[in-house]
Amino acid sequence: MKWTKSFTYTLKESPADAEITSHKLMVRAGMIRKLAPGLYTYGTMALRSIKKFEQIVREELEKIDCAEILMPIVHPKELWEETGRWQEMGQGLARFKNRNSHEFCLAATHEEAVTDYVRRDIKSYRDLPISLFQVQTKFRDEIRPRFGLMRGREFIMKDAYTFDLDEAAAIKSYDQLFHAYKNIFQRVGVDFRIVDADSGNIGGNKSQEFHVLADSGEDHLMVSTEGDYAANIEVCPAIDVVPFTSQASELPMEKFETKGLKKISTLSKALKIAEKDLVKSLYFSTVELEEGSESLSLKELKPICVLLRGSDELNPIKLKNSLGLINPPMMLTDTEVNELTGAYPGSCGPVNLEIPIYLDKGLEGYKNFIVGANENNFHLKNVNFPRDFKVTDTVDLRMAREGDLSPMGKGTLKSYRGIEVGHIFYLGTKYSKAMKANYLDAQGKSLPVEMGCYGIGISRTVQAAIEQSNDKDGIIWPKSIAPYMLHICHLDPNDEAVNTVATDLYGSLMSAGVEVFMDDREERPGVKFKDADLLGFPYRLVIGKKGVDKGEVELVHRSTKEKQVIQLASATAQLIELLSTS
Amino acid sequence: MKWTKSFTYTLKESPADAEITSHKLMVRAGMIRKLAPGLYTYGTMALRSIKKFEQIVREELEKIDCAEILMPIVHPKELWEETGRWQEMGQGLARFKNRNSHEFCLAATHEEAVTDYVRRDIKSYRDLPISLFQVQTKFRDEIRPRFGLMRGREFIMKDAYTFDLDEAAAIKSYDQLFHAYKNIFQRVGVDFRIVDADSGNIGGNKSQEFHVLADSGEDHLMVSTEGDYAANIEVCPAIDVVPFTSQASELPMEKFETKGLKKISTLSKALKIAEKDLVKSLYFSTVELEEGSESLSLKELKPICVLLRGSDELNPIKLKNSLGLINPPMMLTDTEVNELTGAYPGSCGPVNLEIPIYLDKGLEGYKNFIVGANENNFHLKNVNFPRDFKVTDTVDLRMAREGDLSPMGKGTLKSYRGIEVGHIFYLGTKYSKAMKANYLDAQGKSLPVEMGCYGIGISRTVQAAIEQSNDKDGIIWPKSIAPYMLHICHLDPNDEAVNTVATDLYGSLMSAGVEVFMDDREERPGVKFKDADLLGFPYRLVIGKKGVDKGEVELVHRSTKEKQVIQLASATAQLIELLSTS
Repeated sequence: MKWTKSFTYTLKESPADAEITSHKLMVRAGMIRKLAPGLYTYGTMALRSIKKFEQIVREELEKIDCAEILMPIVHPKELWEETGRWQEMGQGLARFKNRNSHEFCLAATHEEAVTDYVRRDIKSYRDLPISLFQVQTKFRDEIRPRFGLMRGREFIMKDAYTFDLDEAAAIKSYDQLFHAYKNIFQRVGVDFRIVDADSGNIGGNKSQEFHVLADSGEDHLMVSTEGDYAANIEVCPAIDVVPFTSQASELPMEKFETKGLKKISTLSKALKIAEKDLVKSLYFSTVELEEGSESLSLKELKPICVLLRGSDELNPIKLKNSLGLINPPMMLTDTEVNELTGAYPGSCGPVNLEIPIYLDKGLEGYKNFIVGANENNFHLKNVNFPRDFKVTDTVDLRMAREGDLSPMGKGTLKSYRGIEVGHIFYLGTKYSKAMKANYLDAQGKSLPVEMGCYGIGISRTVQAAIEQSNDKDGIIWPKSIAPYMLHICHLDPNDEAVNTVATDLYGSLMSAGVEVFMDDREERPGVKFKDADLLGFPYRLVIGKKGVDKGEVELVHRSTKEKQVIQLASATAQLIELLSTS
Repeated sequence: MKWTKSFTYTLKESPADAEITSHKLMVRAGMIRKLAPGLYTYGTMALRSIKKFEQIVREELEKIDCAEILMPIVHPKELWEETGRWQEMGQGLARFKNRNSHEFCLAATHEEAVTDYVRRDIKSYRDLPISLFQVQTKFRDEIRPRFGLMRGREFIMKDAYTFDLDEAAAIKSYDQLFHAYKNIFQRVGVDFRIVDADSGNIGGNKSQEFHVLADSGEDHLMVSTEGDYAANIEVCPAIDVVPFTSQASELPMEKFETKGLKKISTLSKALKIAEKDLVKSLYFSTVELEEGSESLSLKELKPICVLLRGSDELNPIKLKNSLGLINPPMMLTDTEVNELTGAYPGSCGPVNLEIPIYLDKGLEGYKNFIVGANENNFHLKNVNFPRDFKVTDTVDLRMAREGDLSPMGKGTLKSYRGIEVGHIFYLGTKYSKAMKANYLDAQGKSLPVEMGCYGIGISRTVQAAIEQSNDKDGIIWPKSIAPYMLHICHLDPNDEAVNTVATDLYGSLMSAGVEVFMDDREERPGVKFKDADLLGFPYRLVIGKKGVDKGEVELVHRSTKEKQVIQLASATAQLIELLSTS
């Protein structure tokens, strides 16, 4: 393709709303343009990259006999009501009424649609296993769309679904998809990690995420220094390398004044006690609240108290999972805490509270806690359980941190930042039971199918690859998904001899199937070189009068900036060799 | 692909809601499944065909330097307000409010989005021409979705847009697209016609449609027996082969009783006067009414009267265009007509009405009209204009009919039925003016770009091809878009020798790039043959024990049912030869 036909306009300045490198680069390279927040038009370059990635995904899934279908984007309300997710999905699900006042949503995911598709035709165990995928646009009404394609409202996703006889077969399907995903990201050539993950409101009890590593990644990953344990911090068990067990005896409880010492850090300094030896009290409602729902009374909020070491951070996903909730519980407001405990946060604790109290595992071996006294400006010391308060359960609720013991027992945890590009779930029968997707087994018994679901963010992966691979001058494309392999900088479009060389070379490379893009604009060489670096295709070929007079062209490797002079006579053959094997 | 991995389930019975052959066949062949009215899941077979057609479209557009992009499906209200189409599009445009109460629509078309995309980057005449296309899902809230993919709510469309300096350049772009479209449908191999068409609410003043011919087609086409004139009947001029000019003198107007003679047909019989020599009076409102809008007074309705020959049918599109309206005008109700004229339809006419009266061209040379007397059960004869009523304008308002003179002056019109699969429009500056998509010309003057837009119904074309090409046993795919070229009926999956032959042949054909589908199900031969006919791929290869024992397989041509015995020894080579050249 020639630049002048590509509708590609590069920008010198990054847009004001672009916070991360890849977002800036995609806009500057003219690859995306914003129609509205979270809604982007993909230019030719972005689309080529997306399609190349799609093709890699398609090929790897077809290798494992996963069949491609395409489901609608618009779904009727009735479908989502069958699983209860019409309510459960909350405001992220965009809904509308049509001219006949029927309600529909824009699919944020397709478990319901695919289960409906499959249940219409399957009858017996002979129909299983089934493995289906689609590449489709999805819509999620993000509260705050940002980071370009990373957290857009409309995005392209590949989603696959498996249907099996029983759990063992479903896990086999899950493993097949796991390996296909591994192959996909290996083929793309990005540095990625596979981590244990939370299932969110998709359901199921086994789930892993695929992350492209990048400092700007929104996800926090914990990876073991030994073995292959890795998890999203959301679900990573937090294990002290040396668990602490106090040998002290229980002292009598004592109240003392702590005016102005509301924070763990100030309390620690004033008392000269390490933060890890103080105790944090946090209060949550265990009712599934919807945003904008009416305010509830304290009793209706079903409050709980969580205690953890002053130096630790609560992990809301662990708390959600240990309470069996769908979404992480909401913290009580300061006013609600005051109503509940008689004091504002900073002076609260577990003593004399008639609500469930959950103790983080890290505190299990501690004695003589220092906690808020439930009286403003006062704390209690030497608080012990079960003497002074009752513990409903002791659970792992804190965020893991670098240096914690790996859950596999060997090695410690190291922290990484990742961009989630893939997520696979073993779902069990959550959807098939709700939607009566049953089959008859060999004995004629009707059983729900066992399901798995598997997503890859197509548009997101392309941006993630850019986020991982760039330099100060622009994008450095992995060859696998580069929009073009070769960028010809045709420096003298008005010189007949140079033009002949450029046009001939362009033509022969195209005929040989090389993906070549030619900058045929009337621009200065400096502008062309800068833009070539910005667009970042793997190789750049410079064709100008000076070189052509000497019978030479210059090849530049984008990633290393290495330059190589090529004789015109052998250029076509050499480039075809290089660009069809690399 | 193997049948058992394809999730393909054929049905013996057509679904109750399928009215036309292609809809029945697509459902019976397991190619589509309904999620809700107008919303279909495409199975693997349908999707393969869709993608093949997409690829043909893509290749032909890339040949004319049209660059592929991808625009969002969800658009903000503000965008559509710029052109006034947020209102104008009516209820066909699905709208929703998101979590922040911002209003959005599901794009039914992308003129606004692409104009916004282009105006962000173009500056001067040097940036033009621009030619862009996308293949994207669209949503239109059809009042009555039917005919499967033909009139669905969600469908896949290819839309292209051109941007030029001036009208001459824009028409050149239009012509390029015209030829690309011609190539596309020729490559698909369907019998199609290109006809002049109405621009609807897209705008512009030059537009042509591409129709696949089929008896069940919703569109009525008029094609000249000589020359290449062809038009959608909506815009086809109606010209009498022998125009009639009465030589009679004007007689005195006379009222007579016509009790029970409300219809032209009964009046014609009773008076023994040919229907064409009677005059029909029709009443319309010229106000752009929205469905469900409040009822208006007679004056607010701005009524008009239309007169045409009793044997002719009014063409609402011609009436709309001659009145300069966006949508065809609504007929007045019987009550409104009564209020307006003093009589109910069947006894109404133009005499003594204080509203604009439009005369169809066919009546131009007539004298001594017989019309309703505006008094129930009475007519007037010998009514003449301008003596007895004033004519606001004489215009071509009737439907053309078979046998009318071709507007090119040579040949007569013949009638066809077509399925609209493509539509091209020269838009002029309707969108660029409204949205300020301007460029600076060589003199530095700011001018709006000249636009064209061009659509192809991707999913619809696939169904239209089936509607045109099938027999009592099933689909007969055009080779260009057949999901697979070869359908292997593997009759004995449990016989080792046969299985080896089938699997080897399947493997070698696949490696040679032949698109081959193998029925590996445990089903009786009869079932397999019936399903092969139903799925309708161009060739079927029968591999069974009897043949294999003799060293033979059987090739069946789907379209002709011609059978051909092939020696096993040379089968692979012969099939590769046949299937890669055909």
